[in-house]
Amino acid sequence: MKTLTESGLTATALARLDGTPNPRMKQIMTALIRHLHGFVRETGLTSAEWKTAIDFLTAVGHITDDKRQEFILLSDTLGVSAMVDLVRHSRQHEQGTDSSLLGPFYRDGAPEKPLGASIAGDTPGVAIVVRGQVIEAGGRPIADALLDVWQAAPNGKYDIQDEHQADMNLRGKFRTGADGRYEFRSVKPKSYPVPDDGPVGVLLRAQGRGPYRPAHIHFIITADGYEPLITALYIAGDSYIESDAVFGARQSLTVGYHKGRATNGKSERTPDAIEFDFILAAAASEQRARRPRPSRTPRSATRSRQRRAI
Amino acid sequence: MKTLTESGLTATALARLDGTPNPRMKQIMTALIRHLHGFVRETGLTSAEWKTAIDFLTAVGHITDDKRQEFILLSDTLGVSAMVDLVRHSRQHEQGTDSSLLGPFYRDGAPEKPLGASIAGDTPGVAIVVRGQVIEAGGRPIADALLDVWQAAPNGKYDIQDEHQADMNLRGKFRTGADGRYEFRSVKPKSYPVPDDGPVGVLLRAQGRGPYRPAHIHFIITADGYEPLITALYIAGDSYIESDAVFGARQSLTVGYHKGRATNGKSERTPDAIEFDFILAAAASEQRARRPRPSRTPRSATRSRQRRAI
Repeated sequence: MKTLTESGLTATALARLDGTPNPRMKQIMTALIRHLHGFVRETGLTSAEWKTAIDFLTAVGHITDDKRQEFILLSDTLGVSAMVDLVRHSRQHEQGTDSSLLGPFYRDGAPEKPLGASIAGDTPGVAIVVRGQVIEAGGRPIADALLDVWQAAPNGKYDIQDEHQADMNLRGKFRTGADGRYEFRSVKPKSYPVPDDGPVGVLLRAQGRGPYRPAHIHFIITADGYEPLITALYIAGDSYIESDAVFGARQSLTVGYHKGRATNGKSERTPDAIEFDFILAAAASEQRARRPRPSRTPRSATRSRQRRAI
Repeated sequence: MKTLTESGLTATALARLDGTPNPRMKQIMTALIRHLHGFVRETGLTSAEWKTAIDFLTAVGHITDDKRQEFILLSDTLGVSAMVDLVRHSRQHEQGTDSSLLGPFYRDGAPEKPLGASIAGDTPGVAIVVRGQVIEAGGRPIADALLDVWQAAPNGKYDIQDEHQADMNLRGKFRTGADGRYEFRSVKPKSYPVPDDGPVGVLLRAQGRGPYRPAHIHFIITADGYEPLITALYIAGDSYIESDAVFGARQSLTVGYHKGRATNGKSERTPDAIEFDFILAAAASEQRARRPRPSRTPRSATRSRQRRAI
């Protein structure tokens, strides 16, 4: 046994990965150990600070349950989730609509509804209609695409955070017809604070940071033969659009309201509308099948294609 | 709002730390965000892999309770705890005995016992005596030092893991007299697996790694005017001393048994003995008071002093 030095310890820990059967697991754990060791070495982390971190993670674990996911919130507020999104987008989705955070409030099993239906039930708020097309990069409509939609009520709470909302309130699935069009009704979303009564809230306050997210509506869009798209639409002019606590808002996903038109004289108006077309990228396997190309694309070519797409 | 790029996102997240009042918090969070973002970028972490990590951390949080600390186990098996120790040792403790991992099984409140008493109760095993002195780097004995000692039973379980052991079995506190000497009785520790029936066990197996730690006895030694020392003694010749699952074992902390001597003819022997002197470093504040020196010690001088101490 050698006397351990700081660099020797990292080398020893990395050598333990030699027997890892899955090469991707080995790659990920190698990077993780390098970065965690580097973090401790650079900061000269003390035992007391390490203990604080252990206690913090324990508190994050204990507040997490089937209705609250504090680890996702932590990842979100550190910009880690946004980085996962961005890496995925810039390397795989260059043809499609930008992705955005899943966030901690997605729920499986929202009810499928007919096109044009409302997800808002009797939620108090200002009615809106959200509509557009799901299309390919070339503009061809995608039939039978499934949009899984969810948002917070104007009080800033999702159904699972608010006992006054019905189960699955402001959640719904919609399927496009042959023309790729979708449409549903809802209420205007508002900016809201991420849950800041737990350990992540303590951390945000220790950094002098606010917990607010700009108003937005979440989407997961899936269709056979296309990459799934996890994204959200952000409302232009929101006060927090430049300071989104979880780094999800993007210029390309920001939408304004189209003013409703008067009907039956002045007393009634059609609801304000959000109009947005979602572009899905072909599934990776489909891309290979459709666009045979040299297997070793030069890195510079990939980069410049990304830049053009951005 | 600018269109986000990977490096732009990291810069945006770091800029959010501008209002952090505590400079040390800002320094730690800056390094953490840089390393976490770097990890995601280098590995091109996918959403599915990120989700696996979130689920893993959630499982680590949920198995953690007041008797099981899976976050410490995770930190230990990644070599992070050992790095915290090593950084602390090499930068602060150069005069003293090497430190080693606290581990997840330390408990506050072990009973204080008279010098020479046993911590083993009626635990089946081979009796040993552990003794030595607590001293300063120059050799002067430290009176009234408190040794907080704990170890696993020969079945590999600590009291809190084993319903057949009495509460606080194999734990005890001993206080040195004027001569700095300590002595207690116990049973020979054996190598044992870290708890591998939880998420950390799944991770170890996915890396083809074993869960075993070499036999050892833990110590926390405190005395007024000295840096607290968290360390352990490892038994020479143990099969796992080169492959300690948590990177705690060190050459400098490895001890052999001194064979007991026959008494009353051949039928009785004194127990085998571990003999080890612990060297405590003066507390940082005391060091400054006692050893005035140029405030800017050249880095090379610090390094060479460390090498001599090792």
